[in-house]
Amino acid sequence: MSYELLVEGDVCTPSGYKAAGITAGIKVSKKPDLGILLSDVPAQCFAVFTTNKVAAAPVHLCKAILSSNQPVRGVIVNSGNANACTGKAGMDNARTMVTMAQQQFQLPPDSLLVCSTGIIGQPLPMDCIQAAIPSLAKELQPTGGHHFSEAILTTDTRTKHIGAKISTSQGDVYIGGCTKGSGMIHPNMATMLAFVTTDIALPADFKAEYLQMIADSFNSITVDGDTSTNDTCLLLANGASGLSYHELSLSEQGAFRKGLFAVLESLAKMIVKDGEGATKMVQIQVKNAKTRTMARVVSRFVANSKLVKTAIFGEDPNWGRLLSSAGSSGQEIDGDAIDIWIGEHMVVQQGCGTGISRELLRKEVCKEEYTITIDLHIGDAQAQAWTSDLSYEYVRINAEYTT
Amino acid sequence: MSYELLVEGDVCTPSGYKAAGITAGIKVSKKPDLGILLSDVPAQCFAVFTTNKVAAAPVHLCKAILSSNQPVRGVIVNSGNANACTGKAGMDNARTMVTMAQQQFQLPPDSLLVCSTGIIGQPLPMDCIQAAIPSLAKELQPTGGHHFSEAILTTDTRTKHIGAKISTSQGDVYIGGCTKGSGMIHPNMATMLAFVTTDIALPADFKAEYLQMIADSFNSITVDGDTSTNDTCLLLANGASGLSYHELSLSEQGAFRKGLFAVLESLAKMIVKDGEGATKMVQIQVKNAKTRTMARVVSRFVANSKLVKTAIFGEDPNWGRLLSSAGSSGQEIDGDAIDIWIGEHMVVQQGCGTGISRELLRKEVCKEEYTITIDLHIGDAQAQAWTSDLSYEYVRINAEYTT
Repeated sequence: MSYELLVEGDVCTPSGYKAAGITAGIKVSKKPDLGILLSDVPAQCFAVFTTNKVAAAPVHLCKAILSSNQPVRGVIVNSGNANACTGKAGMDNARTMVTMAQQQFQLPPDSLLVCSTGIIGQPLPMDCIQAAIPSLAKELQPTGGHHFSEAILTTDTRTKHIGAKISTSQGDVYIGGCTKGSGMIHPNMATMLAFVTTDIALPADFKAEYLQMIADSFNSITVDGDTSTNDTCLLLANGASGLSYHELSLSEQGAFRKGLFAVLESLAKMIVKDGEGATKMVQIQVKNAKTRTMARVVSRFVANSKLVKTAIFGEDPNWGRLLSSAGSSGQEIDGDAIDIWIGEHMVVQQGCGTGISRELLRKEVCKEEYTITIDLHIGDAQAQAWTSDLSYEYVRINAEYTT
Repeated sequence: MSYELLVEGDVCTPSGYKAAGITAGIKVSKKPDLGILLSDVPAQCFAVFTTNKVAAAPVHLCKAILSSNQPVRGVIVNSGNANACTGKAGMDNARTMVTMAQQQFQLPPDSLLVCSTGIIGQPLPMDCIQAAIPSLAKELQPTGGHHFSEAILTTDTRTKHIGAKISTSQGDVYIGGCTKGSGMIHPNMATMLAFVTTDIALPADFKAEYLQMIADSFNSITVDGDTSTNDTCLLLANGASGLSYHELSLSEQGAFRKGLFAVLESLAKMIVKDGEGATKMVQIQVKNAKTRTMARVVSRFVANSKLVKTAIFGEDPNWGRLLSSAGSSGQEIDGDAIDIWIGEHMVVQQGCGTGISRELLRKEVCKEEYTITIDLHIGDAQAQAWTSDLSYEYVRINAEYTT
């Protein structure tokens, strides 16, 4: 019992979803900047939002809408403007945007969520949005997932979407998703957004499972180590397949969970690969930590180290930086117990360099993707993080922008 | 009652200290790489070491020697090799280095400390060190502080030293210090070292005061956010002035503390200014936090943000990144209460941009040094951090090195 990844999949791959993406004129570039994703019937929604204490208006509004634990019909998303650090006027604009769309699509109150991404500190251009909503309605269709995945982009260089199919004894279940984010590039360009749909019906208590999956996927990637004001991951489950998670066999449930995690992990890795100035994606695998939290903290600390990220860019198999970075993660680890591998090559054994040939290592670190494994030898918990490298292009993108 | 900074001061400025710095051949460059600092009489020693769990052999040895709480006579220091990640052989080498120097200078056991800085994972070249110790003895002199400050450098572009004089009713007291560090440049070049001397006698309970001062000086700077395997700050107090801290008046004690903190802060800032590829030094001042810990965490988080550091390099008055970074520091702050100033210009008021002219701000952020103030408005604690910018040169230095 397993799942099949669908590389062409998107949020409309599961049954019962329609989407659209159009140019409303919020972006100066005239690229698509307004999208909508709707389920034909009310869908259970699981949501994870930024932990940033400076959260944007749409984040506050989504939390308020979801606090009733009622199903929703979908989400309207704009790019080009984050509606963050905009005060009370920003909350009013987010509410107005939702209300206008609910009226257009004849949806009841509090049935639509809203996400924004783009420049911080500027008022949302409500006239553009109001004028564009009827066009959004015209474009809405069951094959609109790709247009939706375009409309949510900011400085991303490409759309990021995928799907999965799980075959069960009672029929097929689909999962689809798209995401955006490549860092916080422009002075105030923010945000990672992800939208995942499925046509299975999910019970409310699936939330804990979803949070765990987010921790191991989107929360395990780092481009620049900063959390944005607008980060949002939504999962919609509308039951349109006629199947319910609880009715599946245990092995079918396992296949669904694996498929969902594969979609989340694939989307998260797409963000790292499209990270600002990224030339490589490296997995930092931490093994045999005392606790899963320790493994997570160490893997993310190493993944986020400027010294490690510049060494990855420089194709320098620098085990000293890896060891020192793990040691400075603030966790109670034992420096004399640590083993480190770059790819299949052991470079550190019990805290000392193994003296392995630099030429062997260079072959590994010149690859576009490879894995660094850090074995702490003090327990049996593990976690991984994915990181991009820190390149000249990263500095250029982040330093040279001026408004 | 105050203190006077002595810009030409060094570790030999206070009475009763001798020092030397020579080329032992540890560095390929043939630059000075072995130094010694000795007090004529036993001196009270206050020490702060790296919190990195991968601590180097000399750090372990110093901790063992100081665990007796006995006074010491001084410290021998080599640059070019960190004696880190070198296992049991590294501990043996550190002990041998100390023993050889104690014999040469006719010092009792456990009276000399040792610091190393340089490449990680390579054995100390003990033959070079053994052959050079007699020359160190020949060069030892009361004016050797400058040579000592040269011998401790690795990738620093300049020596970093300063002194201070405090005049009291009973006579003058002096403080002197030097430091090294500009990041962890070479694949395995590590470490911040600092050596501070004074000719006042300090009571053992001055330690708490010293730790606080280190927290507010050396622990408030960031170049790359990584803690090295060898970081060490030593303060030696030999009483050679004939004066004791407890015999001073309260205002004279205050002047001494201010003078000592000024020396520590000056040395710490010299490290930031000489940071890898640094073109600017910016103070991140956090005001009105709930606790001092909160103020410290927020100031350091913002100071260490890649997005903030690249914006500083790009001379971009990017208040959105400052606000978002403060919000993602993990502290329980209120995003809607925050005010932010760049120099004297208020850029954020209660979480919203003030719309101040970008031209006014550009004048400020084009300066080599300026201050960013973040007022959290939820308490009355404050702290500051100093940061360098993240430049192309930083990436070049850290990426292009290959062994």
